[in-house]
Amino acid sequence: MNKRQTLHVELNVFETFRPRLPSGYESIPIVLLGNISPELQAHVLNQVHSPRFVVADTMDLWIMTTRQELLDLLPRVDLLVLNDSEARQFTEEDNLIRAGRAILALGPRYVAIKKGEHGCILLSQDRFFSCGAYPLESVQDPTGAGDTFAGGLAGYLSGQNKAEVTFDDLKRAVVHGSLMASFCVEAFSVERMVRLSEKEISQRYESFVAMSHFA
Amino acid sequence: MNKRQTLHVELNVFETFRPRLPSGYESIPIVLLGNISPELQAHVLNQVHSPRFVVADTMDLWIMTTRQELLDLLPRVDLLVLNDSEARQFTEEDNLIRAGRAILALGPRYVAIKKGEHGCILLSQDRFFSCGAYPLESVQDPTGAGDTFAGGLAGYLSGQNKAEVTFDDLKRAVVHGSLMASFCVEAFSVERMVRLSEKEISQRYESFVAMSHFA
Repeated sequence: MNKRQTLHVELNVFETFRPRLPSGYESIPIVLLGNISPELQAHVLNQVHSPRFVVADTMDLWIMTTRQELLDLLPRVDLLVLNDSEARQFTEEDNLIRAGRAILALGPRYVAIKKGEHGCILLSQDRFFSCGAYPLESVQDPTGAGDTFAGGLAGYLSGQNKAEVTFDDLKRAVVHGSLMASFCVEAFSVERMVRLSEKEISQRYESFVAMSHFA
Repeated sequence: MNKRQTLHVELNVFETFRPRLPSGYESIPIVLLGNISPELQAHVLNQVHSPRFVVADTMDLWIMTTRQELLDLLPRVDLLVLNDSEARQFTEEDNLIRAGRAILALGPRYVAIKKGEHGCILLSQDRFFSCGAYPLESVQDPTGAGDTFAGGLAGYLSGQNKAEVTFDDLKRAVVHGSLMASFCVEAFSVERMVRLSEKEISQRYESFVAMSHFA
């Protein structure tokens, strides 16, 4: 289940969706632009006054069909999130480190490249971070894992509410996104998420520290 | 360069090789059984009196052609080293965590599964460790990376010379093996290794800690 192939997309309500942020949302510090068309992502971002940190999720569909709109958006984004095959497709670089650097050259300060069972890497111009995936012996349903990763990541940053987001904050944000996704795939649809407790999250985080630290 | 396919093997001198350990070697504490036939690995191991820790490297060729000899060797091995495709082939499990557990059930106390650009995982019955690969923008020559991994790992354990090898020691051993392999692939053949300094190794280790730790 480590590869996804998009066979067909029905945008449904997103076809003519022009989101209007509810009152109060225009002053939020951490913005997550979910995986919709980059033109709609820009439309949402335009409604937020001076966000502190902007995360954008994207996918192969937008890379292929709305590349210019995505390129226009990237300089306004702090962190771009995408998976390994999309990073390769976007940059035509097979080596993921080079692909990550090529994406940074397009504008975002950071890029997180998700690798499914192999975890995730995070790059800036001068820093690099890599984490594995939480070990799962069976994956029930990968649907929504990418959204859960992005939501867990941005949710962690929101919860921190720091004046400035550092690379070390982003490391922990990426780990939280990855662990939230590891819960997501353990059951069908959102079944695991709706019965997830904060204690389970902090326990998985603690065990993941022991699985990742060595020095 | 993340996949290797064996097209043809010429055993050459290994065809009729019956290694006889030099005097003094029969009392060494850390044994690395290099990637030769499991029957020859057993022949070498028989010459060592009460080793403290035995590492064995193996590959697809022995899994396919001398499976029973490999199965006979495994209960005498502390740590088996192999790559992801070989672990899947050996156990017929697609999920690497399940593949690792299936190998542990065959006798070794630990198994290290190498994943090329995706790093490495280490499993025991009740512990798990995962590390990424040192980020390289170009790989010149992957020849010998597996042998360098195993040698770096066993060399680290030898250098520690502890009365007992713990899981935490093995985490650092796996990281050292991985980093030594990252040097190996930076140049053709052994060119990078012969001009490698201890300072370069410790510097790469320190930067890899920063790339892997997050809490």
